Amino acid sequence: MRVNGCDYRTVWMEGSTVHMIEQNLLPFDFSIVELPDHAATARAIAEMTVRGAGAIGAAAGFAMAQGFIEQKESASLPHAAKAAILATRPTAQNLFYAVERVWKAGCEGGADGAVAEARAIADADAEASCRIGKFGSKLIGNRANILTHCNAGWLAFVDFGTALSPIYHAHRDGKSPHVWVDETRPRGQGARLTAWELTQAGIPHDIIADNAAAHFMARGEVDIVIVGADRIAANGDTANKIGTLEKAICANHFGIPFYIAAPIATIDAACPDGNAIPIEARSSDEVLWQQGVDAEGKRHTIRVASPGASARNPAFDVTPAALISGIITEQGIIDAASAGAIATNHKE
Amino acid sequence: MRVNGCDYRTVWMEGSTVHMIEQNLLPFDFSIVELPDHAATARAIAEMTVRGAGAIGAAAGFAMAQGFIEQKESASLPHAAKAAILATRPTAQNLFYAVERVWKAGCEGGADGAVAEARAIADADAEASCRIGKFGSKLIGNRANILTHCNAGWLAFVDFGTALSPIYHAHRDGKSPHVWVDETRPRGQGARLTAWELTQAGIPHDIIADNAAAHFMARGEVDIVIVGADRIAANGDTANKIGTLEKAICANHFGIPFYIAAPIATIDAACPDGNAIPIEARSSDEVLWQQGVDAEGKRHTIRVASPGASARNPAFDVTPAALISGIITEQGIIDAASAGAIATNHKE
Repeated sequence: MRVNGCDYRTVWMEGSTVHMIEQNLLPFDFSIVELPDHAATARAIAEMTVRGAGAIGAAAGFAMAQGFIEQKESASLPHAAKAAILATRPTAQNLFYAVERVWKAGCEGGADGAVAEARAIADADAEASCRIGKFGSKLIGNRANILTHCNAGWLAFVDFGTALSPIYHAHRDGKSPHVWVDETRPRGQGARLTAWELTQAGIPHDIIADNAAAHFMARGEVDIVIVGADRIAANGDTANKIGTLEKAICANHFGIPFYIAAPIATIDAACPDGNAIPIEARSSDEVLWQQGVDAEGKRHTIRVASPGASARNPAFDVTPAALISGIITEQGIIDAASAGAIATNHKE
Repeated sequence: MRVNGCDYRTVWMEGSTVHMIEQNLLPFDFSIVELPDHAATARAIAEMTVRGAGAIGAAAGFAMAQGFIEQKESASLPHAAKAAILATRPTAQNLFYAVERVWKAGCEGGADGAVAEARAIADADAEASCRIGKFGSKLIGNRANILTHCNAGWLAFVDFGTALSPIYHAHRDGKSPHVWVDETRPRGQGARLTAWELTQAGIPHDIIADNAAAHFMARGEVDIVIVGADRIAANGDTANKIGTLEKAICANHFGIPFYIAAPIATIDAACPDGNAIPIEARSSDEVLWQQGVDAEGKRHTIRVASPGASARNPAFDVTPAALISGIITEQGIIDAASAGAIATNHKE
């Protein structure tokens, strides 16, 4: 995707150096970090310089390839590098998958094989996101108003993203979409990252308080809702950023199509339904405090709630399959109820 | 209500001096301002030292009484004071009502009559809120979890409030309620004012991101929703803080009772339905920037969204009567659909 007129991916490799957009500084500063070895790349993954399932997977694959490059002259395998990379984000499924693939390729083909496999993983992620966009853009009419929640844009993947990819494609096709960007409290990924992406892409949008979505739905100003997914159960129940369930219920109330956009790898066929998905409880400080920059550009962390008050902060919620119009995947748009079967076929 | 162990109203009069809680400093500082004359009180109303329909009305009544006191020795009426008070908050219905009542009493009974009338207005507001609490507390079971949105507590009235009054009464009755406090972006009245009130009252509560309400409803952790109202149409459609509609739709989806708490004066019998209620569009800066204090207590205003992004900020939404289980008034709990008829009878 383009930033300040240049094409970027979230993470890529040049020679033996991994490059990443420093996402911790967004949306206030845009910069690229250069990571010379696996240790630096692993640290960047742990410190969330890169975030989002697809982007973390690609970064981990490149880090593993760096591990093989570092041991090129010796006969030993980079076991320590593998352990260090696996320890960065203990619950990221894509990370394990990518590290194992690159490990196997490195064992068989050495550093060159490892680098080629890491590139293939990143390319496949970008290709899947691109295909999601092509399928999803068919759902977007001319001058459509699309509501999205959180950030399932290209910053969370290698390129294009999931929920935003159909919007990017519709924009390129000249359909003039307009996007309602849910702020997405408490962490504000909509106001910070989705709005930043859309500004860079030149796509008209308005940030709204999460509270305002139903108001615009009631006025007929939302044509379709598209969001990403963190995990999809076999029956189609979908875990995604907290607030997704509210948007799904409201869209259902007003008869507005509600779509999930996600690669098939997001479907966990071994998970029967939403009840089996554990919900991460994050620190209440994310609700009670906010970070940002003042008018002079100086960063501050401020308390935005009454001192002494407590807070609860579930990071995700589960939207039942019955509220989901369809899942936009790289294989096409599927019924939520058939998610498990399609994921199982895809694997075989 | 008690603050730091002492009983307070939001606004009261001692001699010729009006006292108010300085609400602009809440929740970070608690202080009382003393306003020696009508000009000072009018300025405090305009600067939102006092806010909320009931509290503004009481303050305006006291300011008008101060106008009569200031002219006690002369034969002329305080026309200039009346004009100054009426100009403070041009859309506040309670303000006009209170000023007219005190004006009439002052014309007939002089300064003493004006002061007595202003006190009667404040007492009636507190009494109505108290009665709302008594009726509403019957809806709250032992150890109930109540969700509320925005601040319809005593800070918005003279005492007790509307949506929070049933909770205060249930707490005093030993029912051990727990309150889910919607943060209420963009202005955060839940996180700032409702949480502050509940902390002072010693009522267990948790602030949640507005996004999290449906999640707790889905888990069976919300027994009832009670919110306030800015304006109720004759057919029961209710305008209230943005986000109220989302909570009503979600409560309806999960079969959770959803109540409005408001004095009958909030019903506008001349307004046929929600379509006739204009929705104020407020500055996008309220969405894009946030105010608060840092760890050292220093106030900052920070940008919390991507620079250059635009925002939309409707201040209210309209919840259709069909989603409302009932309206808790000082006359008892009424059907939303009969709002107009009851308000008309009440006036006659």
